[in-house]
Amino acid sequence: MKTKIDTIRHSLAHIMALAVQELFPGSKFGIGPAIESGFYYDFGLKSSLAPSDLPRIEKKMKELIKKNLKFKKKIVSKAEAKKIFKDQSYKLELINELYEARPRSKVSVYQCGHFIDLCKGPHIRSTKEIPINAFKLTKIAGAYWKGDEKNKMLTRIYGIAFENKKELDKYLKLQEEAEKRDHRVLGHKLELFMWDQEIGAGLPLWLPKGAVLRHIIEDYLYEELISNGYQWVVTPHIANLNLWKTSGHWNFYRENMYSPIKIDEEEYMLKPMNCPFHVKIYNSKIRSYRDLPLRYAELGTVYRYEKSGVLHGLTRVRGFTQDDAHIICTPEQLSDELAGNLKHGLEILKTFGFKEFDIYLSTRPEKYAGTIKSWDKATKTLKFVLNKLKLKYKTDEGGGVFYGPKIDIKIKDSLGREWQCTTIQFDFNLPEKFKMAYVDAKGKKREPYMIHRALLGSMERFIGVLLEHYAGALPLWLAPVQVWIIPLGSRHEKYAQQVKKELSSFRVKMKDENETVSKRVREGELQKIPYILVVGDKEIKSQSVRVRSKNKDLGMMKLDKFIEKIKKGIENKK
Amino acid sequence: MKTKIDTIRHSLAHIMALAVQELFPGSKFGIGPAIESGFYYDFGLKSSLAPSDLPRIEKKMKELIKKNLKFKKKIVSKAEAKKIFKDQSYKLELINELYEARPRSKVSVYQCGHFIDLCKGPHIRSTKEIPINAFKLTKIAGAYWKGDEKNKMLTRIYGIAFENKKELDKYLKLQEEAEKRDHRVLGHKLELFMWDQEIGAGLPLWLPKGAVLRHIIEDYLYEELISNGYQWVVTPHIANLNLWKTSGHWNFYRENMYSPIKIDEEEYMLKPMNCPFHVKIYNSKIRSYRDLPLRYAELGTVYRYEKSGVLHGLTRVRGFTQDDAHIICTPEQLSDELAGNLKHGLEILKTFGFKEFDIYLSTRPEKYAGTIKSWDKATKTLKFVLNKLKLKYKTDEGGGVFYGPKIDIKIKDSLGREWQCTTIQFDFNLPEKFKMAYVDAKGKKREPYMIHRALLGSMERFIGVLLEHYAGALPLWLAPVQVWIIPLGSRHEKYAQQVKKELSSFRVKMKDENETVSKRVREGELQKIPYILVVGDKEIKSQSVRVRSKNKDLGMMKLDKFIEKIKKGIENKK
Repeated sequence: MKTKIDTIRHSLAHIMALAVQELFPGSKFGIGPAIESGFYYDFGLKSSLAPSDLPRIEKKMKELIKKNLKFKKKIVSKAEAKKIFKDQSYKLELINELYEARPRSKVSVYQCGHFIDLCKGPHIRSTKEIPINAFKLTKIAGAYWKGDEKNKMLTRIYGIAFENKKELDKYLKLQEEAEKRDHRVLGHKLELFMWDQEIGAGLPLWLPKGAVLRHIIEDYLYEELISNGYQWVVTPHIANLNLWKTSGHWNFYRENMYSPIKIDEEEYMLKPMNCPFHVKIYNSKIRSYRDLPLRYAELGTVYRYEKSGVLHGLTRVRGFTQDDAHIICTPEQLSDELAGNLKHGLEILKTFGFKEFDIYLSTRPEKYAGTIKSWDKATKTLKFVLNKLKLKYKTDEGGGVFYGPKIDIKIKDSLGREWQCTTIQFDFNLPEKFKMAYVDAKGKKREPYMIHRALLGSMERFIGVLLEHYAGALPLWLAPVQVWIIPLGSRHEKYAQQVKKELSSFRVKMKDENETVSKRVREGELQKIPYILVVGDKEIKSQSVRVRSKNKDLGMMKLDKFIEKIKKGIENKK
Repeated sequence: MKTKIDTIRHSLAHIMALAVQELFPGSKFGIGPAIESGFYYDFGLKSSLAPSDLPRIEKKMKELIKKNLKFKKKIVSKAEAKKIFKDQSYKLELINELYEARPRSKVSVYQCGHFIDLCKGPHIRSTKEIPINAFKLTKIAGAYWKGDEKNKMLTRIYGIAFENKKELDKYLKLQEEAEKRDHRVLGHKLELFMWDQEIGAGLPLWLPKGAVLRHIIEDYLYEELISNGYQWVVTPHIANLNLWKTSGHWNFYRENMYSPIKIDEEEYMLKPMNCPFHVKIYNSKIRSYRDLPLRYAELGTVYRYEKSGVLHGLTRVRGFTQDDAHIICTPEQLSDELAGNLKHGLEILKTFGFKEFDIYLSTRPEKYAGTIKSWDKATKTLKFVLNKLKLKYKTDEGGGVFYGPKIDIKIKDSLGREWQCTTIQFDFNLPEKFKMAYVDAKGKKREPYMIHRALLGSMERFIGVLLEHYAGALPLWLAPVQVWIIPLGSRHEKYAQQVKKELSSFRVKMKDENETVSKRVREGELQKIPYILVVGDKEIKSQSVRVRSKNKDLGMMKLDKFIEKIKKGIENKK
């Protein structure tokens, strides 16, 4: 449903086009829709624009808005439309397409000032409806006509628009905050990961500090899962194409898979998922109902095709490590398994400092594997479990994957943004495809239930989200470097070394470079080091350290008291 | 140099051929050389043989030997030879080849009894020189004529032969012992790893117990390396072909690499090595001499082509995880780095229970990268370090890889067999190819030294060797399951649970199946569980456990004493 602000945004796109027409005569016009938080318009310009041109266009737009220009709608025949847009090649292309689709129908055009556009509307009646202080042009980008890279590149100008200035300012502030938290920038600044052209897009390399962070998280997960009855497995990154044919991936998922690798005249595929491997492990011996539930967990690195244009830092990559698990159980165990999994999963997410979640239940889509009966039963069980755990959720009707219904958990970060991480999915497909079975109490062969679940989603995505959530200032237990020790001068280095030795069970770095103390402290704060210890004469005398944390001076502290403090912090996962 | 036993082995091959000629008239003869520990002969037989035929052939051989048959050498022209072997198509083929190579020279033939063979010799003079109780026919295998799969498949019979019966028995015993320790058999029996036809040959899947074992080793390595100044990194499994062109792998290593994967019209390769990634990490910023040495470590899974015929359990696979490290240092740091690395490496290997090592120094081969000067310097440094550490070594002249000299450490297992695991290699190639540099104390750009090293070699290979070394009975700290608790009857289950809870920091399994105690104990011993605790009335009364370890009853032990005992064992990595 279109709201008033959507209509204003759409009309602002036209006003921007009018301004461009007046400022840059001879411009060609592509399309200009309203989008989330604003609008854009694609222009074919005679010369290129710089961001510094935006204020000029914005100023022109404000002048035009103040004229209280009317939006006039006209219904015209396609022949008439062709006459109106005779100098506008992109519009003519659109009209011709409309002709082909529905030759007899008419089209609508909207005029505002001297700018006329082929447009379905709706629009505001007059520019006086526009809150003049609540919009802003934000950026210029290249955009292929119709999004097709074979076409000409146009100049896209983006704008944002809100109902009032307060909303605009709020949005700008959030943007500014989000930019500061951009994990791509932080990852570079904190030396966590890198990219390399010669290696390839979407393939992160984890630098030492990032690899330590990964290790901490992976280690924590391992301990958590093992002590909760999961069994660890490790599987290869490639498998014969035959496996993917059996599993159905070759049919249903091929566009996300890379091209085959030939080995001895057979074709092998990089794995896009770990599931078939876990199924093979299950199938490696006869299973009894007494063996179930079986919970296989793996940190499995998978490779999936993404267009280079959509790659984005760690949150959209071509290779990533899923914290993947498959739970295989009897029908009787189903709801307990789901409840246990959900509860444990939410606990783990909370440990990482996330407090709010939005839960979505996705039901049967049009194309599906399995029977309606099994879908209904599974969906009912999911609802039952969500209700039992008193978890609020929204239903996404028909939003399930073809192989079963699912629960998705989106975590809210400190800016209130939602990130899809956890997914718990039924699978009616693989147990059938791979003829999975167990022997029940009566000695009868039955098909088990199988649940996929990724809790953090992937190490890459989750670490990206963590960095944005904490703006890089990771809690002590996760910080790759927990403490910096800064001796005031060279005569304090011996004591600093002694402090370092006492802290040897933590991740500590000595900062004894020949730099001013304030420069080293500032550097530590930029590096988001949880604790910066400065030591000088006074500290030596009292066997203390001067503690700085989160840009604040916490004063002198006895060394053993400080050790106790951080030990406790780490134990409590703070 | 041929020794007497080599000659006897060769002559035994002829005697076996003679026996086959007498037992299976009309047989065709391929070749029959002496090999390590024995001999074989390839036969073209009219009907197939079974292992049960071997004693018959062996009996015949002994009869022939007892006749004190003479080996008579004759030099004949090739025309004469063709006449002699007119019914032997394989021999004729060999004679024709000899013709082509050297048309005028003569050939030698050896006759023994009625069997005459085209053969260079030498042979024994008479069969009475053969120790009649010191040989044995061992197996039958198919072998393509000249090893070419386009040719006909012949029947190869293998035999072993020694100087006396004692040597033969020793060898047979070792073989028997080695068979019991075959890691492929143990891996299946102990449920550590599996293979699957549909996934592909040479691609192991780690089952839960195997994955735990891997995790323990990986975790230990991580801690060891981090606390020794290594930095952890994680890199992708694929990279653009351009990277492998720059690194030289595409030129020098292509036959070990899989075929390219196409992504967006670019070609990507599964990585056969981690080196170029670590170089990229080094090159990601400007390095100063103050930053060096840098020691990057990764558990990097690489994929290398191996012919399906040579694949062998975990010790020869197509995908494996190297415990890879690259040390980048200044020339001045070189010998300290090497010494530190070697010393630390040997300590780690000893921790895993290996006590003897054979060390090899491999020097400049014919084709090499870098300058003779740098090779000489590096080789001299390697020798200097080996001498400084008082390590005995053998020199393999010309055995280095093209990019630099190396030290290999072969570990000796409990049967005295050698396994190549550790390698420490110089690299003169990559620093140049990737223009690696650091700024020295005078502000001048210099090229650093780079050392590759894999300590365990790969997780797969090393675990294979560990299993063979320990015959599957891994030491406590490595055992995937450390303790089984067996309650005598159902009324002892509560106490058993209490024991399990007290042992919760160890890897413990409850065995309360409805089976006899002796059956459960035997099963635990077959599963090589380090400690099996049986609990009944007496144990409950005295808060004890009855301890079995390594097939021995260690008697009753107070629970807290037992906990102390295994804690100590784990701490000491026993």
